[in-house]
Amino acid sequence: MPGVVTFDQLWSDLADVGRSPDTGGYRRYALSAEDHLLREWFAGEAERRGLDLVTDRMGNQWAWWGDPDTTPGVVTGSHLDSVPDGGAFDGPLGVVSALAAVDRLRADGFVPARPIGVVNFSDEEGARFGVACAGSRVITGAMTAERALGLTDEHGISMAEALRSAGRDPVQIGADPQALRRIGCFVELHVEQGRGLIDLDQPVAIGTDIWPHGRWRIDFPGEANHAGTTRLVDREDAMIGLASTVLAARSAATTQDCVATVGKTLIVPGGVNAIPSSATAWLDTRGSDEAAVRRTVAEVTSAAEPFGARFTEESWTPTTRFDPDLLRRLQRVLPEAPLLGTGAGHDAGILATAGIPSAMIFVLNPTGISHSPAEHAERDDCLTGVAALVAVLADLAGERS
Amino acid sequence: MPGVVTFDQLWSDLADVGRSPDTGGYRRYALSAEDHLLREWFAGEAERRGLDLVTDRMGNQWAWWGDPDTTPGVVTGSHLDSVPDGGAFDGPLGVVSALAAVDRLRADGFVPARPIGVVNFSDEEGARFGVACAGSRVITGAMTAERALGLTDEHGISMAEALRSAGRDPVQIGADPQALRRIGCFVELHVEQGRGLIDLDQPVAIGTDIWPHGRWRIDFPGEANHAGTTRLVDREDAMIGLASTVLAARSAATTQDCVATVGKTLIVPGGVNAIPSSATAWLDTRGSDEAAVRRTVAEVTSAAEPFGARFTEESWTPTTRFDPDLLRRLQRVLPEAPLLGTGAGHDAGILATAGIPSAMIFVLNPTGISHSPAEHAERDDCLTGVAALVAVLADLAGERS
Repeated sequence: MPGVVTFDQLWSDLADVGRSPDTGGYRRYALSAEDHLLREWFAGEAERRGLDLVTDRMGNQWAWWGDPDTTPGVVTGSHLDSVPDGGAFDGPLGVVSALAAVDRLRADGFVPARPIGVVNFSDEEGARFGVACAGSRVITGAMTAERALGLTDEHGISMAEALRSAGRDPVQIGADPQALRRIGCFVELHVEQGRGLIDLDQPVAIGTDIWPHGRWRIDFPGEANHAGTTRLVDREDAMIGLASTVLAARSAATTQDCVATVGKTLIVPGGVNAIPSSATAWLDTRGSDEAAVRRTVAEVTSAAEPFGARFTEESWTPTTRFDPDLLRRLQRVLPEAPLLGTGAGHDAGILATAGIPSAMIFVLNPTGISHSPAEHAERDDCLTGVAALVAVLADLAGERS
Repeated sequence: MPGVVTFDQLWSDLADVGRSPDTGGYRRYALSAEDHLLREWFAGEAERRGLDLVTDRMGNQWAWWGDPDTTPGVVTGSHLDSVPDGGAFDGPLGVVSALAAVDRLRADGFVPARPIGVVNFSDEEGARFGVACAGSRVITGAMTAERALGLTDEHGISMAEALRSAGRDPVQIGADPQALRRIGCFVELHVEQGRGLIDLDQPVAIGTDIWPHGRWRIDFPGEANHAGTTRLVDREDAMIGLASTVLAARSAATTQDCVATVGKTLIVPGGVNAIPSSATAWLDTRGSDEAAVRRTVAEVTSAAEPFGARFTEESWTPTTRFDPDLLRRLQRVLPEAPLLGTGAGHDAGILATAGIPSAMIFVLNPTGISHSPAEHAERDDCLTGVAALVAVLADLAGERS
């Protein structure tokens, strides 16, 4: 069972990279030392298998079995970066399963009629520069190079500066139609991030659609002043607007049957005895219905308005429905797998929006928790995922006659 | 006018240390490179004047004119550290005015009967390690060495580690009765941090008392999870408790006629698409009436309880009334200066609590704003403050017959 052996081997290769000894969670941010290590690892695995490694204009890595410039290929894979203190599976499970599936196909003597590609997308989580799926957004033109390069991390370092520090030339960044032409279709395997498969009591599902979702940056003005000597009536305390808006977001999401989260804030100057002169909250809102998500954000905007808040839409992705023909093929190959939508954004969604036939395979997460060290998938379920991917790749690539 | 000349010179010496070119505000945290520079500067000024520099067990610097081991001296001075993005005056005005006053007395040929000391207190703002007036708290025993050394900054660096990095031995830290015995009385000159002198239309006031005030750390538990895939009902979002508590604090303070501020928070893990697994807010509460402050905190505690919040009292200082005899002497010397209480904590308050006769002189702040780059004092008012301090020191030290 080469797929099983390589799965275990690849999984243990990654176990320690960027892992906190305190929490067991991962910090693998775009263009960090950990990211560099993971990219080197991916390049090494491609080389070890004699796959042709191509790096596109956004730094996404593509390992090809066969020549996709002759015939567009069947691509699988995911990403290796993480959220702050993230789980081990979100991203890496898709990359490791892809490599294990290729090994299994080759060990079985399978010769694909169409090329098969394994991708490692850059900066899927947006943990450092604030925009998720930056790698796929830029190559598809969903985000301009100019905007990407100007994004800054919490230390004020721009993506352009971070690229230069990593020895890469920001001028290279941009839409990459050639990279896209090589993708005949894309199937991303991913750990499930909710409780859908728990409720369905199944190890694997076929992803049907991604909820509409967006991120908004909300800036609240204030006036710095002394916490002890400034009367309440004289205050412009930016924290009050932020707190009210956090609660308004929860309330609006409840009313509209959406989800809304403020998981990141920036309080300036941040002293215990200084009234905040500014406060920023990042709002993440999603739901199964686009209009409901928009209504949620509109309600939050109204609630924040009296505090002089300024809203900036950092990203917006409408409902993404995966390719119906591709879904039918996956259902034929995996007749027992249920269909499942998701509230999580993925590179598969960005490619689908760009017109590339895409779909997803989800693997059971017994905790239902993701973006946390508690995220989990049992080894048996991971191997069921690899087997599903093997069957899907074989079907989509076809065997050379 | 040597006092005037040295005031201008000393003031310009300090103008650039730790100043942000963007905001014009200052970042001068305890045991930082800026702090080191400021301490070197103070030592140099002491040496230039032939004052005897003594550093006590907490690193507070004392520059003596005369021998305080023979007769306890009259001490003036303040601190040189700042809050994040603080103003130029909070602290440095008292140190610079003290040195300028000494220069003026000497230029006038004044020979004090009792020693005169100028102090630079360490870590008054508590901006780095979270406890204000750490320098005076430790030497008076109001904070134990053990607690001080275990305080950590936002990077998890303890005060003990920071001391070692600065080349100082943490074992030295502790109560210092010998340093205290040298202080016959203490008069701290400080920029006013509210609007009292604006309303009274006066350049200088005599400080009568410091409001009771405290700091509480409030920890909210949560469960990290994915912002897109976790239903609202399944969430334990630490941010919701924090936001509710911020609003409860404002409401309680309004009811109780106190002030309450949340100026610093810590959201973990801090990702845009991750539900916070923990959130911490620091609450600063003060008021003219001790019972009302306690009631405010009790109301906030009740409001935070449903969220599983844990309260830790990081500091508590009851009402501090300055020494009545010392106040009467200051009133005789400065008959036109009004009397003024304050909501701001000061080292003078800590020394007063330790039984050392203490008082304060406030200088008009025309913006009424402090802990901000907008904090201000006009040069003329500063010089009026120096003149007031000269008169007070001459009266308290007495002229050698």
